[in-house]
Amino acid sequence: MLKGVAASTGIAIGKVLVLKEGKKDIEKYEVTDVKSELLRFKKALEKAKQEIAEIKENAEKNFGEERAMIFEAHLMILEDEEFKGSIEGKIQEGINGEYAIKETVEIFENIFLSMDNEYMRERAADIKDVGYRVIKILQGEDSNLLKDLKERCIVVAKDLTPSDTAQLKREYVLGFITELGGKTSHSAIIARALEIPAVSGIENAAEILKTGDFIILDGVNGIIYINPDEKLINEYQEKVEIESKLKNELLIYKDKEAITRDGKRIEIAANISSKDEIEIALKYGADGIGLFRTEFLFMNRETPPTEDEQFETYKYVLEKMDNKPVVIRTLDIGGDKKISYIDVGTEMNPFMGLRGIRLCFERLDLFKSQLRALLRASLYGNLKIMFPMISSQDEIIKAKKILEECKNEVVNQGYNISNNIEIGIMIEIPSAAIISDLLAKEVNFFSIGTNDLIQYTIAVDRMNEKVSNLYEPSHPAVLRLIKMVIDNAHREGKWAGMCGEMASDVNLIPLLIDYGIDELSMSAPSILTVKKVILHG
Amino acid sequence: MLKGVAASTGIAIGKVLVLKEGKKDIEKYEVTDVKSELLRFKKALEKAKQEIAEIKENAEKNFGEERAMIFEAHLMILEDEEFKGSIEGKIQEGINGEYAIKETVEIFENIFLSMDNEYMRERAADIKDVGYRVIKILQGEDSNLLKDLKERCIVVAKDLTPSDTAQLKREYVLGFITELGGKTSHSAIIARALEIPAVSGIENAAEILKTGDFIILDGVNGIIYINPDEKLINEYQEKVEIESKLKNELLIYKDKEAITRDGKRIEIAANISSKDEIEIALKYGADGIGLFRTEFLFMNRETPPTEDEQFETYKYVLEKMDNKPVVIRTLDIGGDKKISYIDVGTEMNPFMGLRGIRLCFERLDLFKSQLRALLRASLYGNLKIMFPMISSQDEIIKAKKILEECKNEVVNQGYNISNNIEIGIMIEIPSAAIISDLLAKEVNFFSIGTNDLIQYTIAVDRMNEKVSNLYEPSHPAVLRLIKMVIDNAHREGKWAGMCGEMASDVNLIPLLIDYGIDELSMSAPSILTVKKVILHG
Repeated sequence: MLKGVAASTGIAIGKVLVLKEGKKDIEKYEVTDVKSELLRFKKALEKAKQEIAEIKENAEKNFGEERAMIFEAHLMILEDEEFKGSIEGKIQEGINGEYAIKETVEIFENIFLSMDNEYMRERAADIKDVGYRVIKILQGEDSNLLKDLKERCIVVAKDLTPSDTAQLKREYVLGFITELGGKTSHSAIIARALEIPAVSGIENAAEILKTGDFIILDGVNGIIYINPDEKLINEYQEKVEIESKLKNELLIYKDKEAITRDGKRIEIAANISSKDEIEIALKYGADGIGLFRTEFLFMNRETPPTEDEQFETYKYVLEKMDNKPVVIRTLDIGGDKKISYIDVGTEMNPFMGLRGIRLCFERLDLFKSQLRALLRASLYGNLKIMFPMISSQDEIIKAKKILEECKNEVVNQGYNISNNIEIGIMIEIPSAAIISDLLAKEVNFFSIGTNDLIQYTIAVDRMNEKVSNLYEPSHPAVLRLIKMVIDNAHREGKWAGMCGEMASDVNLIPLLIDYGIDELSMSAPSILTVKKVILHG
Repeated sequence: MLKGVAASTGIAIGKVLVLKEGKKDIEKYEVTDVKSELLRFKKALEKAKQEIAEIKENAEKNFGEERAMIFEAHLMILEDEEFKGSIEGKIQEGINGEYAIKETVEIFENIFLSMDNEYMRERAADIKDVGYRVIKILQGEDSNLLKDLKERCIVVAKDLTPSDTAQLKREYVLGFITELGGKTSHSAIIARALEIPAVSGIENAAEILKTGDFIILDGVNGIIYINPDEKLINEYQEKVEIESKLKNELLIYKDKEAITRDGKRIEIAANISSKDEIEIALKYGADGIGLFRTEFLFMNRETPPTEDEQFETYKYVLEKMDNKPVVIRTLDIGGDKKISYIDVGTEMNPFMGLRGIRLCFERLDLFKSQLRALLRASLYGNLKIMFPMISSQDEIIKAKKILEECKNEVVNQGYNISNNIEIGIMIEIPSAAIISDLLAKEVNFFSIGTNDLIQYTIAVDRMNEKVSNLYEPSHPAVLRLIKMVIDNAHREGKWAGMCGEMASDVNLIPLLIDYGIDELSMSAPSILTVKKVILHG
């Protein structure tokens, strides 16, 4: 039995396929026929380009444009004249192609790693990924193990690169096991998006597990059973069957409205982090988008997205949602979310530091360009703008004033904007909950961000494993605050939703309904279960 | 005009005395008469010992035993055989005494600095302090500038060492200005304890200011005016007179009870961090000790104090306070308070991490030995035990259970304990305030710790200057929580006090009285003003 991190829920039972890293030693030898070695390199380069182009196409289909962009970057590396030139130069000195690439990758890796900019440092991994692809081709090794899967298996690897995951065939992959990474690693995110069970963070998994081993992967509890006995297999098989039956049964709820037994309709919405996730939200029958975390538009790049880029994204999301409500939260950077080109400095307690609306007030350039983009997009659907980390009346009044300024600017530039944009705030700081009677007068809606609200209320960082046992969503103080927020919203005729993890906690939903919650927003795969619970308990 | 940190309040007007560090170069030269050089060193060593013994005696008188202990350590360094041996060895090689000391200090300094233990690393500064004292004696420089003051002056230095501050004559020192240090540096703490106005953190102060310069030191605002004009001098002289008049007027409140105009007596207590501070508390007429921060007993040492050591300290404090109430808070380590031998590890958000009662539950050895010491001391006065960082009912129930266990242990060992010990908790976490109706059933009293309560409620780290403007004691959410806590205590017939900085905020005291606060605990020098405000507004 091996224990790791439950990276993606579900159970897989089957045979292991261990993906080894290109383990063949990269030998250095002298080439005398430089010309044909150059040709050999050129051919490998073309093959690599072709492979990457395929992967990219595949990724676009499976994960959407944004996630496929990384392969565009990979192609650019292969076409980079300096990169190619360095390799060819070494070959002309009589070094074999494999070794010439290895040396060049190392040089470029070090240059990127020594850069001050985090984004550029991360690019070192891309160069290595691309370089070793060409080396493998030169070595005649098949780099497309995942692509050519013919049998269903559980893939075990040190880590899965974006190239690995992008080319896998969903129908043959029962599960992932990786040595590296936690819940937020690339492979965990992909696994969840594809609904493939996964366990990560198992040390030496690729050594301990052998290709052909029969295992049970329990992605609910983060456990691997190696060569389990019949009894355990039967137990788990039963679980799988029950789960798959449940999943099918749940599909009938897709187009149903979540109406409580006393006749109130609860809006069941999806949380998304990129426009690509709209598809999943729609697939699961989301009544709307309850939280679009726009900060992810700003991540993994060197400069902020322009107003026009943002406009296109917001317009796309609004149009796709076809007049269903879309709550777009303004930039919520800081805390544990860092962006290389927005320097917050080092903070002793980042969760209680410069983040959310506080940072936006410091960076009016970013804030206003986002608000302008939102206003311009407002015509294309049912937009609601939400401000994060509000702790006082002053802050919401200030945010609304800045929004008014942007409205004037945009209108003066000749754009039309909707006159039905609702304005709301996250309730995630205790002070906001406690004065929600006052804040309700300033906004159209609240969305309770339980993750942070619980953290601050109990003074516990839930990422800190030494105290995470104190993080308790059903702490009476938390429940009282939630009830207070909903009551205060209703007293002013406003609506109150929830977008933290608690919103999909089926044990607490009856209580939230009793409190009068109007909307629950969650990760898309939870929607059907929640609808069922509301309709039938 | 120079701007620094307001390290100790008050105004000083007068001439500057710049304390230069031993600036004479330490030259290296060859000695031929090794024997007489050894004798010269021996004499200097004896003189240094004599000086330090004097300083120590002086410190004991002015600051109490605990703060004088550092000079005991200094004496031990001078008597250390390895330290002395290393210097004498170098002299025997023909190196002059000054240089032999310099080299030895550097060696020992590096050894201590390379140690893993923070306490030992701090000892490097003591070795340097002691070593350079002997060098100065050898160089014939008078190291007792501060001791021999004949004229009242404002002392300017890069930093003031414990030896510097311990030997100064209070009556001649109008104020301190230091280049290093903030509000919590050694010299700032001493300045406040002695009520000497001080400004710290002024870069190059010892270069910019010259001995003999006439200046105004404004310790309220952290400002220095160099050679000010007549008008400014008059303005400030007036301020000084008003302040001194007020101070004298305030003395009439020392033995008065703080009774509000509607006839309720408010207990005005002192916050202390060591037993030495009892004297100051009594000097200002404290009705009791509202908060004894015991964590300082655990700091600046290599191992925790034993149960017996703690017993002696608690007994001393209880006896000195002569049956007046003494609230002793159990160990509140973690957050920004670190102790070298209690490893909390690195935390991303230490304020929301393993601290206070959470840490005590992990370190039952420390917790129980403290509780046993407290129980044994309980016979000697009016002891109230207070637990920090309580966030839930479970925690206080658990803490009380552990206290019961300790009671049984202590009684079984044959000790008598008081049967009138009140049990209370800090209300400093929002969840505790919100469920204070439930917590009130479990305790005899609450003490509202406003500093932390405000931080968590508004989600703002007040030490983080990027957001400290949001730290607002009169935020309506904070005031509502305070009122709720007091109401809930009274509903259960319990009392509610306050020990954060807000307790001495004269602008907010009328409101706290209106809310029904029963006790206010503060740093001793604020007591008289607060009594006056309560009695006369």
